Amino acid sequence: MTRIRFQQSLEDLKEQLLVMAGLAEQSIQRAIEAYRVRDLSICDLVTRSENAINRLEREIDQAALDLLAMEQPMAGDLRFILAVIKINADLERVGDSAKAISDRVRHMEQLGAVELPVDIPKMATLAAAMVRKSLQSFIEADPEMARSVLAMDDAVDTMNKAAYKALTKVMEEQSHLAAQALNALMISRALERVADHATNISEDVIFWVQGADVRHYKSVTGGRDPNAKG
Amino acid sequence: MTRIRFQQSLEDLKEQLLVMAGLAEQSIQRAIEAYRVRDLSICDLVTRSENAINRLEREIDQAALDLLAMEQPMAGDLRFILAVIKINADLERVGDSAKAISDRVRHMEQLGAVELPVDIPKMATLAAAMVRKSLQSFIEADPEMARSVLAMDDAVDTMNKAAYKALTKVMEEQSHLAAQALNALMISRALERVADHATNISEDVIFWVQGADVRHYKSVTGGRDPNAKG
Repeated sequence: MTRIRFQQSLEDLKEQLLVMAGLAEQSIQRAIEAYRVRDLSICDLVTRSENAINRLEREIDQAALDLLAMEQPMAGDLRFILAVIKINADLERVGDSAKAISDRVRHMEQLGAVELPVDIPKMATLAAAMVRKSLQSFIEADPEMARSVLAMDDAVDTMNKAAYKALTKVMEEQSHLAAQALNALMISRALERVADHATNISEDVIFWVQGADVRHYKSVTGGRDPNAKG
Repeated sequence: MTRIRFQQSLEDLKEQLLVMAGLAEQSIQRAIEAYRVRDLSICDLVTRSENAINRLEREIDQAALDLLAMEQPMAGDLRFILAVIKINADLERVGDSAKAISDRVRHMEQLGAVELPVDIPKMATLAAAMVRKSLQSFIEADPEMARSVLAMDDAVDTMNKAAYKALTKVMEEQSHLAAQALNALMISRALERVADHATNISEDVIFWVQGADVRHYKSVTGGRDPNAKG
């Protein structure tokens, strides 16, 4: 393979990953739309997307492996391919979270509508924006943009903790709403995981671009684990 | 680097990963011991382990990357190193789950002891056995053993679903126990995730040894997602 063809293959890999990212993001948006309007036909779309995402994950992994095996790339290209493999895994898990949310929506639909003290769409908007921005930082190879995603994770964590507290209170004080409150709490948690995956993606971008490993240094960059010392 | 030294480096990488696995498994066992006897000093150990696990994850990733960059390994060796990178990430997340469990135990301890309809230690024993067996299949490069782990995942899923149902009922019928029931439910979920990571590790072993990608074929092998078609 010539150098030019190798560069083209890297571009193709990037394109595939962006398709994967588009599917994952769409899947989250659909799951939240299903939540908002309690529409089970949208839940079906999310389930179908999850299958497509799983297939694409395998294809991307295989393409990345082929490039590693045939081209034995060095330095920056090697780090790029490894970043693709890791981002790919995170995007697949975003798809899993979307599926988890739509499963909860199905259950909520069975139980009937109630008012709950949690703004799921707002949380979802923020989590989806993190995914989009982390992918943007990947497209533009921009570690500064990636770092700004790490800072956003705090806000989602705070919202998730507030949701946990408010929904536990509902369970304690209005026990007939316990099952619905629990569904909402699980959706809140799934969104917090989406935000974590966006954080992972951003770290992979920084790793790729700067050759620095920024994981677990969140306390410096404004991160999610106040207990982490390392 | 000579071939012999390269083989030695692969052995070293494997050793490092087994240390990582030992830490992750110990961390889960400690978190469950903390649950069983409600001992917050054990929770502190789990937090400290998580930091050690995070550090080791970075070291292993770097060692794997160095081998890829310097040695440009082919075929089986390449797949081995990629499997190490993926297993490493899963083990780090097992550490996260242990931390999540111990955080719940801290909260439970504040609220005081209650009887709940869930056998967390039993579930933990099964999940930890899955992690151990998946690592054993890695050590022995045994895809059959790895497949037996995939089958075990069903049992943990079933236990988690039963816990969810029973604990939701507690929330509805004994609302003064809602917060405690929720803590137990979160621990059950964390254990279900540990089982998922063991499943991922087993899939990576099969991928490494057989060059086959078995992800998302769980419906055939007795797996966790009845909706997956691909």
